[in-house]
Amino acid sequence: MPLIVTGSIGIDSVHAPTGTATDVLGGSSIYFAAAASFFGPVRLVGAVGEDFPDHFLETFNHFAVDLEGLERRAGSKTFRWTGRYHENMNERDTLEVHLNVLAEALPPIPEAYRDSQYIFLANTDPGSQAQLLDSFPDRRLAVADTMDLWIDTQKSQLLALLERIDGLVLNDAEAIMLTGATNLVQAAEVIVAMGPRFVVIKKGEHGSLLVHEDGHLALPAFPVRNVVDPTGAGDSFAGGMMGYLAAADDISIRTLRTAMAYGTIIASFNIESFSLDRMKQITRDDLDRRFEGFRAMLEL
Amino acid sequence: MPLIVTGSIGIDSVHAPTGTATDVLGGSSIYFAAAASFFGPVRLVGAVGEDFPDHFLETFNHFAVDLEGLERRAGSKTFRWTGRYHENMNERDTLEVHLNVLAEALPPIPEAYRDSQYIFLANTDPGSQAQLLDSFPDRRLAVADTMDLWIDTQKSQLLALLERIDGLVLNDAEAIMLTGATNLVQAAEVIVAMGPRFVVIKKGEHGSLLVHEDGHLALPAFPVRNVVDPTGAGDSFAGGMMGYLAAADDISIRTLRTAMAYGTIIASFNIESFSLDRMKQITRDDLDRRFEGFRAMLEL
Repeated sequence: MPLIVTGSIGIDSVHAPTGTATDVLGGSSIYFAAAASFFGPVRLVGAVGEDFPDHFLETFNHFAVDLEGLERRAGSKTFRWTGRYHENMNERDTLEVHLNVLAEALPPIPEAYRDSQYIFLANTDPGSQAQLLDSFPDRRLAVADTMDLWIDTQKSQLLALLERIDGLVLNDAEAIMLTGATNLVQAAEVIVAMGPRFVVIKKGEHGSLLVHEDGHLALPAFPVRNVVDPTGAGDSFAGGMMGYLAAADDISIRTLRTAMAYGTIIASFNIESFSLDRMKQITRDDLDRRFEGFRAMLEL
Repeated sequence: MPLIVTGSIGIDSVHAPTGTATDVLGGSSIYFAAAASFFGPVRLVGAVGEDFPDHFLETFNHFAVDLEGLERRAGSKTFRWTGRYHENMNERDTLEVHLNVLAEALPPIPEAYRDSQYIFLANTDPGSQAQLLDSFPDRRLAVADTMDLWIDTQKSQLLALLERIDGLVLNDAEAIMLTGATNLVQAAEVIVAMGPRFVVIKKGEHGSLLVHEDGHLALPAFPVRNVVDPTGAGDSFAGGMMGYLAAADDISIRTLRTAMAYGTIIASFNIESFSLDRMKQITRDDLDRRFEGFRAMLEL
């Protein structure tokens, strides 16, 4: 079933204990779309500036991403993010952020995309997420990501959005920040009471937690020895999850569990290199092999 | 096969956002022994002072713990610990610690205990752990716990111990501290290279990680809504794990996986109340039921 992602497309610079990547392709919707494309076609809606390098477009040759919704806006500049990871790679500081085109009008949604059924509103301000949601009257499943900035500055818009979406994806610190709960299970339950049918809390190297109206699920991360760059881990997790759901066209908790496990696996590949470098190298077979190892590991 | 635990027996006072417990039974070997006793008899070696309340002994009526190795030392005082948990329950401060009898000579090992095969050296200084290890010539599996204090002050003794034991159990911060590694998988691998055949890293609400010469395993925690008191979570986890291994009399990685899952389950009960209160209420059937839910949750 048609899957669409709206969100940021960026030019990233990453400093990590493992090395530095300067001016590489990044952004939440990019990691999401690449990861989701292993399971079926993905529609991408986003805007970049006229500084967006041509060779970045070639990256999409590796992935089944429909770029009709990618707007290259004359006179604008692409979103840029520069970050530095701490020694332990679980924490990072944002050194520079330039919203650029993200601070302008939303890109138009192509007419052909209006029949999209699986909708992922990657991280942007909740007002824009709500406006984008209106563009998809046939939606079967709408899931949003969010971040501390919006919890802090646009909480009422975020709460309004939560009443309209089926699922929310956010990280552990954000879940605590949004709810004031003292543990993650409680935090997720409070969020479910705010509207969505499920919440997925991303915990980085500690895995993920699902609280769903039909039950709970905790998954570990896949143990990875060589973490090169955690950037995009959460977005590629969400992309794998939504890509699997859209391909299965089933939103039961049973399928969601498998979908989260595939998200876990694609994220475990993504962090093994900078930008989309690792995802460019692998195939669905590689995903399935590592998934099988994960399945066997968790077989009690 | 005979399982023995050596370690601290204490009088704890715990301040948590959920309430306060004053002068309750605690100590690493106590939580361990109670948890392990769900799977078979456990031998306990430890010393308490003459201030040790009689009614604490009644607690053991609930558990199959052999108390021949419990020494009540005249003229000595019992180990005491007072701690305060932070709002999020993942961090705590030690407010007061009085080693008392723990700073004196080790308790004698009863002759009848010398045939013990499964040995757990709960947290104490590594020199004492090594000395205790010598008492069990027939050991089949020796596992030790440790803590930041010994990594900081007695590292060479700890490294010497690592060459002699089969497994080490420690928490995530301690694993990083011991190795200087940047992630937990790497940290555990470095520790395995120091001597033991496996390392289990305890991550609290984030579960556990096993690095074994035969493979890796990550398990989530069992999602618990009402965490009342995390004290003893790691010790009850270790007790469940070792109790299951000793009962199965098998130390393959396959059995270790099931053992860690049972450790996860008993710890999830333990944290639902102060001291051993929750473990006193449950049966092996309760454990098995929650284990079955955990197994089903992780069936991908």
